[in-house]
Amino acid sequence: MPVPRHDADATVAAVGEHALIERIRARAGVLPDWVTLGIGDDAAVLEPERGTLDVVTTDSLVEQVHFRRDWTLPAAVGHKALAVSLSDLAAMGAAPRASLLSLALPPDVPLAEFDGLVDGFLALAAKTGAPLVGGNITRSPGPLVVDVTAIGSVRRRRLLTRGGGRPGDELFLTGELGGAAAGLALLEASRDRATFDALDTDCVHHYEWPDPRLRCGQIVAHSRAASACVDLSDGLADAAGQLARASQTGVVVDAAAVPIHPGAAAWAARTGGETLPLALVGGEDYELLFAVSPRHRRKFLAAARACRGLVLTSVGRLRSEPGQWLSRMGQLEPLGSGFVHF
Amino acid sequence: MPVPRHDADATVAAVGEHALIERIRARAGVLPDWVTLGIGDDAAVLEPERGTLDVVTTDSLVEQVHFRRDWTLPAAVGHKALAVSLSDLAAMGAAPRASLLSLALPPDVPLAEFDGLVDGFLALAAKTGAPLVGGNITRSPGPLVVDVTAIGSVRRRRLLTRGGGRPGDELFLTGELGGAAAGLALLEASRDRATFDALDTDCVHHYEWPDPRLRCGQIVAHSRAASACVDLSDGLADAAGQLARASQTGVVVDAAAVPIHPGAAAWAARTGGETLPLALVGGEDYELLFAVSPRHRRKFLAAARACRGLVLTSVGRLRSEPGQWLSRMGQLEPLGSGFVHF
Repeated sequence: MPVPRHDADATVAAVGEHALIERIRARAGVLPDWVTLGIGDDAAVLEPERGTLDVVTTDSLVEQVHFRRDWTLPAAVGHKALAVSLSDLAAMGAAPRASLLSLALPPDVPLAEFDGLVDGFLALAAKTGAPLVGGNITRSPGPLVVDVTAIGSVRRRRLLTRGGGRPGDELFLTGELGGAAAGLALLEASRDRATFDALDTDCVHHYEWPDPRLRCGQIVAHSRAASACVDLSDGLADAAGQLARASQTGVVVDAAAVPIHPGAAAWAARTGGETLPLALVGGEDYELLFAVSPRHRRKFLAAARACRGLVLTSVGRLRSEPGQWLSRMGQLEPLGSGFVHF
Repeated sequence: MPVPRHDADATVAAVGEHALIERIRARAGVLPDWVTLGIGDDAAVLEPERGTLDVVTTDSLVEQVHFRRDWTLPAAVGHKALAVSLSDLAAMGAAPRASLLSLALPPDVPLAEFDGLVDGFLALAAKTGAPLVGGNITRSPGPLVVDVTAIGSVRRRRLLTRGGGRPGDELFLTGELGGAAAGLALLEASRDRATFDALDTDCVHHYEWPDPRLRCGQIVAHSRAASACVDLSDGLADAAGQLARASQTGVVVDAAAVPIHPGAAAWAARTGGETLPLALVGGEDYELLFAVSPRHRRKFLAAARACRGLVLTSVGRLRSEPGQWLSRMGQLEPLGSGFVHF
């Protein structure tokens, strides 16, 4: 079916569901050979990879809760909607295979914004090997909701879960924390991006264009050096707590060891706030937290070195005594929980 | 983790995301052995069925567009949200294996309504073998959005698609049409269900509690007697048009042959309206439309007899001449398209 031409000022309501799907299909590009059937039938059909397990996750971004249409490029919304689901696959050690995009669209969304969102999604889908194979479009009287399902695969012996940690395991974190929370705070304080310095801009980039740690998740899974893994959608405190709870252990996070994004530190210094909470309960740093047994430490560090461009930092330890603690200046205090969604 | 107790008058915002997930997990019951990992990790993990393809689909219901919270039992919303995705699997000949539920929740939704929705979803999930293995919960300032991903499997040689039809194929439809559209019209005219007669009530039931034709889809797929299949979310005109377009054929639907739900006929008679449009463009009858080559007709009818309790009716034919037509009183008129979502 030819793609109908529409004025970029047209709204999605004027274009209609079928034409919107055709616009997506026209942009979706060539599908890999494991996609038996992509966009356009009642469902997508994938050829399973021999000897692997299917890994499936879904996540959504809601306008006004997770993004503002007037603050952010539509492409960043599409990128991030896919990135947060891919981050879940990364935490399982899985390789992406396909994605589904379900949109609840206010009728006044301009076609140019729709196209931008789809393009941001498809660019990350192409880069990560998660081709868009299906989805759904419906109108909504409410906020724009972007719901993404990501599908991946992993060999059974390489599967990482939250629940495999043991007392004594060391916790290793990818990257630095607080950047995304500082980026959001910066945008809340000023929409004039021209006033942001390089560190500010990097924080905003962290917040808007998260980079799911797929490669590192797969490298560590392949090494079989980690006993458990979780991703950090809601901050380090929440992630460490989830991993410990699932592993039926206690946990201590070492405050002094938590790697802080320099832009987050600069933001905190400028506003007279504390830095650590940005890392502990500031959400949206899509990093990975691994638990590593002492006897696999060397193997893990070798795998970590292969995660090029990504520093892994030891930030704490699982232990048999129950409870979730933050160790600060030699004292234990409650770790608290993460970013609260309600 | 123990399920915290909450007053049924409490709102979902008062309960919080983690506790809501625990409530779902506590209700989700025992998982089949192909589910390696269900609710509670970063992603769900499924063991693929040897020799089959993965079939994946996503669909969503939006409050005020697809349902009204004040008209409908929460359990019906949960049921229907899953049913419409399962209907897509049915149209591919696939057997369900798992489901994911993603909710965008207004904070004032009472906990009892949340529980009701989840229970309606889980009851159908249990009945159809589509256990809930994961999902997402987020708050939203807007309407309740229920997004469902359904995952199934089918053997490659049994896969039904929209695009396999050939000129000369006969079109067969499950069930009767117009019931759901009449049910919606009845609810729009009166919310006093006590005034509905048995036919009215059956129409409303069709609208609120659609029964995905999974068994019939699988029986026909197993027989390999159909060349193509599509489900009828948006009416017969849209479905026949989609099947013909994907098969690169024309199509003629025989107006006199279209099976009409008696409640739809009664509603049309009472309101002085036409019956046929309820069937052709009235959406939400989740029936299946099969294309059947003349040389497989006997095999198809044998398979159809095995779809117990479900009548299959010949309603038209694919043809090489392009165009989508309705044959009425010996005249061809344009078939038109289906229910418009925007």
